[in-house]
Amino acid sequence: MSKPIDEFRRSAHQIVDWIADYLEDPRQYPVSPNMQPGDLAAKLPPAAPETGEGYDRILEDFQRLVLPAVTHWNHPRFLAYFPSSASPPGVLGEMLTAALNTNAIVWRSSPASTELEAVTMGWLRQWLGLPEEFFGIIYDTASMGTVHAIAAAREMADPESRNKGMQRGLTLYCSEQAHSSVEKGAIALGIGRENVRKIPVDAEFRLRPEALAEAIEADKKAGLRPFCVVATVGTTSFAAVDPVAAIADIAEKHGLWLHIDAAYAGAAAILPELSWILEGAARAHSVVMNPHKWLFTPSDLSAFFTRRPDLLRQAFTLVPEYLRTGHEGLNINPMDYSLAMGRRFRSLKLWFVMRYYGRQGVMEILRRHIGYAKRIAAAVDADPRFERVAPVHFALVCFRYKGSNEDNARLVERVNATGKTFLWHTELNGQLVIRFSIGNIGTTEQDVDEVWQLIQCSV
Amino acid sequence: MSKPIDEFRRSAHQIVDWIADYLEDPRQYPVSPNMQPGDLAAKLPPAAPETGEGYDRILEDFQRLVLPAVTHWNHPRFLAYFPSSASPPGVLGEMLTAALNTNAIVWRSSPASTELEAVTMGWLRQWLGLPEEFFGIIYDTASMGTVHAIAAAREMADPESRNKGMQRGLTLYCSEQAHSSVEKGAIALGIGRENVRKIPVDAEFRLRPEALAEAIEADKKAGLRPFCVVATVGTTSFAAVDPVAAIADIAEKHGLWLHIDAAYAGAAAILPELSWILEGAARAHSVVMNPHKWLFTPSDLSAFFTRRPDLLRQAFTLVPEYLRTGHEGLNINPMDYSLAMGRRFRSLKLWFVMRYYGRQGVMEILRRHIGYAKRIAAAVDADPRFERVAPVHFALVCFRYKGSNEDNARLVERVNATGKTFLWHTELNGQLVIRFSIGNIGTTEQDVDEVWQLIQCSV
Repeated sequence: MSKPIDEFRRSAHQIVDWIADYLEDPRQYPVSPNMQPGDLAAKLPPAAPETGEGYDRILEDFQRLVLPAVTHWNHPRFLAYFPSSASPPGVLGEMLTAALNTNAIVWRSSPASTELEAVTMGWLRQWLGLPEEFFGIIYDTASMGTVHAIAAAREMADPESRNKGMQRGLTLYCSEQAHSSVEKGAIALGIGRENVRKIPVDAEFRLRPEALAEAIEADKKAGLRPFCVVATVGTTSFAAVDPVAAIADIAEKHGLWLHIDAAYAGAAAILPELSWILEGAARAHSVVMNPHKWLFTPSDLSAFFTRRPDLLRQAFTLVPEYLRTGHEGLNINPMDYSLAMGRRFRSLKLWFVMRYYGRQGVMEILRRHIGYAKRIAAAVDADPRFERVAPVHFALVCFRYKGSNEDNARLVERVNATGKTFLWHTELNGQLVIRFSIGNIGTTEQDVDEVWQLIQCSV
Repeated sequence: MSKPIDEFRRSAHQIVDWIADYLEDPRQYPVSPNMQPGDLAAKLPPAAPETGEGYDRILEDFQRLVLPAVTHWNHPRFLAYFPSSASPPGVLGEMLTAALNTNAIVWRSSPASTELEAVTMGWLRQWLGLPEEFFGIIYDTASMGTVHAIAAAREMADPESRNKGMQRGLTLYCSEQAHSSVEKGAIALGIGRENVRKIPVDAEFRLRPEALAEAIEADKKAGLRPFCVVATVGTTSFAAVDPVAAIADIAEKHGLWLHIDAAYAGAAAILPELSWILEGAARAHSVVMNPHKWLFTPSDLSAFFTRRPDLLRQAFTLVPEYLRTGHEGLNINPMDYSLAMGRRFRSLKLWFVMRYYGRQGVMEILRRHIGYAKRIAAAVDADPRFERVAPVHFALVCFRYKGSNEDNARLVERVNATGKTFLWHTELNGQLVIRFSIGNIGTTEQDVDEVWQLIQCSV
């Protein structure tokens, strides 16, 4: 009988070959599966096995049952949401992270993870053009980054709430196009949904600074306490860029915490020609951007930067005796800055990605994606049956078929049902809008052209 | 020139061989590194490379710089905190998760992940002996599970806070031995630290139900609103088991949400001889346990169960137009139950682990660990220089050298400095207590015996 580790080694090599084939060309799979809710669950046993099974059987079921139920985010023609890429260097990093399985609760529990996180966050900070005073930390998702930002903002405005609990009256501002995580975070933290002011946007879906200023003034007059404003760089629906500098002026005037949600578009600030999108961000209190969106890093890895780590720490530190290490004074223990105590060695995959591509390599891919988007935008503009609804700064093209919502919905459905692409939609003043969202490292000009033709032929 | 995917394939195979060697015997490495904060960071370049580098250079730096800074959680003699295991099947699952890189925001965005998560949570629920009405969902950490539980509890007690924001007066209960995440969660959610009542424990570190009842009565008399109690099954310092059934009686009488933090010890409920630890849990509103602790699943994967998914959903659902799928009525979209919107395909590794070991295999490992702990407990009891401070139900032995705190601290330091093991401590009434915490799948009787000898020889 072979040793268990030999069985692992054999299966792991098999899996590597499968992964290499898969990453080389996921086009052999339909982008999204043709199935109904419950189809996969119905094929799986209702209880776990009583005795162990071999890797071969598990892998066979993975191929036969699980894989056909996968929506392939990694497919070059996956054009829904904001795409993500399991880049080859990112996958290598994940393999090592899984094997080491460290937990960076405190520096001592995983010095390598704690320090590589600090180093890679420093590298990324420079790429984004943020000043040195910004402290970086990795969370799982931008939603969590935003929760941490709002909590730190509350700590600045109302330090009493930490001990005594929240009282009503704190108000938070974002545009009506901000990500739902802003509102969700505010609800969770006890701010209350009614105290989230959704500021109107201009014709290009950007927060209107004068409307923000008015809302703050009105709330102050009403005896409320404005404490935080969230600006978005690359909104979820249309990738709009809020005017950060103008918002920073207002935030400074009223002493508000300014958080920038650059989850999607932040990566584009690496390009000199797009560095304007983070102009004024140096005056923000916090910035979140997701390497697991447009920086080719497998999920999850969201980068959070703040120039007030003292307040973030004040909001989240609680050191039980069983975690005292004598390093408390150095403020290097990740758990002091985080709601989650456990912490995977996430920075390893980012380190692989940043080193493998380098800044030039990353810029080349970003520019390629943006070029494709401009190409599709031009094609949309050239077809009188369609109308574009938002400017293209990044790699997202938003447009609609000049027909009813039902026409547009059916169009998306028909296109997706081919399995040749996967698109999703959003909404604008009650009208359904199709999003053509590019971002996978494998996407080619031919991919986007063929998807556009498919759309044209499916009306 | 070879194709990039060939380079990936070659490096991935190299990494698999390294991982197999590593998992077979991590004993070649010191358990924790001999270094000072900043040592690794000082060796890494202050900026990311301008142009890309090859995998060989990155892997060389991983071996030369990163690896020597790793605390080896995977080492069979890692006996700190609560150990975790990168089991071989768990690592295989992680490899596939990284490659697929799906994001189960909604069912549609990753049917395979959404359904396999539901199925594996059902399997685990059965292993733990929880009734069918419990709905399961995966979060990253138990800290986050507890935050979700407290938020759902608030939704039950004070549904107005979702819209209007928190008002002071809600009070939460846990034992003085509860994990710091309870308090941290209450602070984040706006409950306030002062409104967390830390109920005294008995001689075996279990929450005293009569003290809980008194505290609730007193708060009610004072006009406060008790809304949630957290019972712990396997406390962090001493692995004590709060009397769940007695606490459930009190929670029911006062209409409180009962959350059970079984992050560590929950896995032991799989053993018939230890199923008593979750007696009464069927009456709880929520239970959290961590497969990434004592169920051989690489981090992160925390299992959360609730019999009130309606309230959890009510607390966390917010569906923006760009995520509407037409499946809202089925309540199958993970983001409706979660603060984080993104979601890795975490269930895949748990599916590998549960199938590879089966229930019998898991029980065999758990019993082996518990047997080692009882063996060490007996050895401690037999050495008059030491005293044991807590009963051993699981795989944690807590004891102290009969000397000063400095003696005990120096003892731990001396033992850890050998690199042959890594122990950590906790505190009891101002006294430092050594924790001998077993839980890695590779740990043998010889390992625990030799570490105990090392401790004896280091006094």
